[in-house]
Amino acid sequence: MSDPRFFRRAGPFSLAQIAEAVGGELADDAMGDLMIADIAPLDEAGPDNLSFLDNKKYLDVLAETAAGACLIAPAMADRAPEGTALVLCREPYLSFALAARMFYAPAPPEPGTAPTATVEPGSEVPEDCRIDHHAVISSGVQLGARCHVGAGAYLGPGVTLGDDCRVGQSATLECCLIGNRVNVYAGARIGTEGFGFAVGPEGPVRIPHTGRVIVEDDVEIGANSTIDRGTTGDTVIGRGTMIDNQVQIAHNVKIGRGCILAGQVGLAGSVQVGDFAMLGGKVGVANHVKIGDGARLGALSGVNEDLAAGGTYLGQPAIPIKDFWRQVAAIRRLTKRG
Amino acid sequence: MSDPRFFRRAGPFSLAQIAEAVGGELADDAMGDLMIADIAPLDEAGPDNLSFLDNKKYLDVLAETAAGACLIAPAMADRAPEGTALVLCREPYLSFALAARMFYAPAPPEPGTAPTATVEPGSEVPEDCRIDHHAVISSGVQLGARCHVGAGAYLGPGVTLGDDCRVGQSATLECCLIGNRVNVYAGARIGTEGFGFAVGPEGPVRIPHTGRVIVEDDVEIGANSTIDRGTTGDTVIGRGTMIDNQVQIAHNVKIGRGCILAGQVGLAGSVQVGDFAMLGGKVGVANHVKIGDGARLGALSGVNEDLAAGGTYLGQPAIPIKDFWRQVAAIRRLTKRG
Amino acid sequence: MSDPRFFRRAGPFSLAQIAEAVGGELADDAMGDLMIADIAPLDEAGPDNLSFLDNKKYLDVLAETAAGACLIAPAMADRAPEGTALVLCREPYLSFALAARMFYAPAPPEPGTAPTATVEPGSEVPEDCRIDHHAVISSGVQLGARCHVGAGAYLGPGVTLGDDCRVGQSATLECCLIGNRVNVYAGARIGTEGFGFAVGPEGPVRIPHTGRVIVEDDVEIGANSTIDRGTTGDTVIGRGTMIDNQVQIAHNVKIGRGCILAGQVGLAGSVQVGDFAMLGGKVGVANHVKIGDGARLGALSGVNEDLAAGGTYLGQPAIPIKDFWRQVAAIRRLTKRG
Repeated sequence: MSDPRFFRRAGPFSLAQIAEAVGGELADDAMGDLMIADIAPLDEAGPDNLSFLDNKKYLDVLAETAAGACLIAPAMADRAPEGTALVLCREPYLSFALAARMFYAPAPPEPGTAPTATVEPGSEVPEDCRIDHHAVISSGVQLGARCHVGAGAYLGPGVTLGDDCRVGQSATLECCLIGNRVNVYAGARIGTEGFGFAVGPEGPVRIPHTGRVIVEDDVEIGANSTIDRGTTGDTVIGRGTMIDNQVQIAHNVKIGRGCILAGQVGLAGSVQVGDFAMLGGKVGVANHVKIGDGARLGALSGVNEDLAAGGTYLGQPAIPIKDFWRQVAAIRRLTKRG
Repeated sequence: MSDPRFFRRAGPFSLAQIAEAVGGELADDAMGDLMIADIAPLDEAGPDNLSFLDNKKYLDVLAETAAGACLIAPAMADRAPEGTALVLCREPYLSFALAARMFYAPAPPEPGTAPTATVEPGSEVPEDCRIDHHAVISSGVQLGARCHVGAGAYLGPGVTLGDDCRVGQSATLECCLIGNRVNVYAGARIGTEGFGFAVGPEGPVRIPHTGRVIVEDDVEIGANSTIDRGTTGDTVIGRGTMIDNQVQIAHNVKIGRGCILAGQVGLAGSVQVGDFAMLGGKVGVANHVKIGDGARLGALSGVNEDLAAGGTYLGQPAIPIKDFWRQVAAIRRLTKRG
Repeated sequence: MSDPRFFRRAGPFSLAQIAEAVGGELADDAMGDLMIADIAPLDEAGPDNLSFLDNKKYLDVLAETAAGACLIAPAMADRAPEGTALVLCREPYLSFALAARMFYAPAPPEPGTAPTATVEPGSEVPEDCRIDHHAVISSGVQLGARCHVGAGAYLGPGVTLGDDCRVGQSATLECCLIGNRVNVYAGARIGTEGFGFAVGPEGPVRIPHTGRVIVEDDVEIGANSTIDRGTTGDTVIGRGTMIDNQVQIAHNVKIGRGCILAGQVGLAGSVQVGDFAMLGGKVGVANHVKIGDGARLGALSGVNEDLAAGGTYLGQPAIPIKDFWRQVAAIRRLTKRG
């Protein structure tokens, strides 16, 4: 179902092959030979497509799907229509991710430097890299193997990237060291001078920011996100952390490993986020606040003091999520009494 | 009053011409011959300018205006100073829009391709299009008539635009099909890979996004806004929907026709918005939520469950606006008692 | 401690020199000859580095610092380790800013125009300006002395900049007049058409925006921020106002002098902000609202009506900050009773 103008597809694969690769089990072994040509959502899938059910909200869509096959949790299996072969999985979304990567495996870029790109002397660009139109690779830049720098992107003096990195169109990288397999999406700004002023008698005095941004391996940084460099010392994004679009990360923030920051999150200066924390959309965190390992923050939360590891929080100011909903209920009762 | 460095103006027009074109009525027919050279706000307008009053907040500014003429609702007419000729209109702001379009009619771009632009073989660029400096038109791109692609914009392989589209400077379009008369402002990112991961035992597993973004006719997409492509299936922006700056729209969102999304709105994955809905600034909507036709959401609302058509909502979580203000009052009383 | 790949450093300076320059006093005059090579944060500083303590939260880091010298308030001086020479200051952060500017003084750009830049005829670019790769200087642009236009930035027809301005990579300036010493960071969009429509019987009618953006002297505009031009009349940013990343400023907003707008603030159309106001991260202000001189708004506040000068406000809707915390406490009590 994918549009051939935009995507190249591998396959087809038999349902047996897929089931094995994604850690699932055929509900009916006789369906193992069914050939699957593509993945598709339930409402668009046809007889040679594989779909998935991960959210009860779509049970009615499942009931009417024309999908040839579906990844599904065992408990939901009896809700699927008869014509759909089922692959039973403990985590259908994870299995779907693995299946999608069979059909659309990420590939290294086609090597080459566009004639309109600018690669300044004193930079290192391995031959297997791809540099697109009007990109700028400044002096002192070092790229690892198989990097892909998009059209109009700018890599400032001394910027270093590991292997297999992608930099989106018009993105800006300055004063930063980037690990391996990092994806920076279009329009992201990394290493910009931070928003730091001291208030003097004649108005604000700008503080020159002489720190860096350190981005560890396997990080993603979404489109139009901004990460300022440290005042002194570094802003750090830990290994495997995923950052969505339009996220703002101020100077000297330290984010641990494996965190997820959804769209439009904002972290003020010197915030610390532990490992494997999850921040919902539009969460805001005040400066110098520490968020513990594995903490989860619901969307739109505002955090103005340190939060313990492992908890789930919501609200402005953010409180334990149970307390938040109890307060919502209490406020609702107030107006019913009134 | 417009700055000739930036704008070209038509006219002058007589007040009678204007009144007819904007669906208004002269308060005094004798003023029909007054020649109007430009539009201007009340506090800057001079004797040959047309202004408007749309908000009671500016009645005191009206009282001191030097505007030669003013578009105004009949009920406010007695508040205008004597020297200002009045055009009575039911909807002064709509009439003002129509008047502004007399003086500053949108024009097709001057055709031509800048020598520094890159137009790859296998793309279709009609002769009446304009491609500015350092723009990139990739292979397989199809532009309609009279399109204008701004400096440094990037149109990825296979992207299709209808007639009379404008793409702002440094904007990025990938994996998307765009209708007619669509305006994409500077720095917008359309068709970027969505923020989709499944959580596996060794950390997040990226899901390749093989859907598209479909933008129907007459849509506007504001500066630095981001619209991710679908996981599988499409992200869709319906006809005539207006999207302000810094709006984030995640994968698989479906927005209906004629919606208005103000600045910094964020829609999480698979959100559905009906026709003619209005979302105030900074509204956030959680994933898989459905918002009914014509629903209105006050600024900063947070939506975590489906909202019925036609209602007006406010708050975090968003509730009917009357209930919101009742709750605000009840909370206020609490502290007065205390 | 700064990375020589990214920064050039002046110095070293003696601690006596520094103390005098930053308005501090040596705790022990015998330490005046100590040579300081760089500035660094407490946890990274070595024996020839100067650090600072500005926030009690870092007292435990201070206790273990290896910094040769530290800027510190007199009241905290006894908390520093013995090996660290102290410079006593009333405002350590201000003193640190001044010290940082000794080591890393802002310098004018190296003059020159990249061969890949486009400078259109009819523009004025003084010889001491620097125009980086793929930047576009349109016809009618006037730059002041020592301006630096970053790679891929776009200055539209007629745009005027004063002396010593910097425009970041891929930024877009249209329909605007910019003062002296203004910094526009990467990806900012200034002068874009505003989000203005009148609702007509056949859907929204776009209003052509023929105003400008006026940016006065000494302003900073953060990365990926957006400032729309006026409908008619101007959007104005007053002298010395500091705007962080991803701030959205709509048409006809007027901001006074010396204001601070933190990351992701959003101001709707025609908002007025007085002089020296401070808006925390993610604050949203509804259209036509006026915020008085010196008002302070806590992060995430939502403002829907005029706010008096000098007050400190918080919440959605924003109320005096004491009332906000009283309400938070009252709501907490509600659920304890229940």
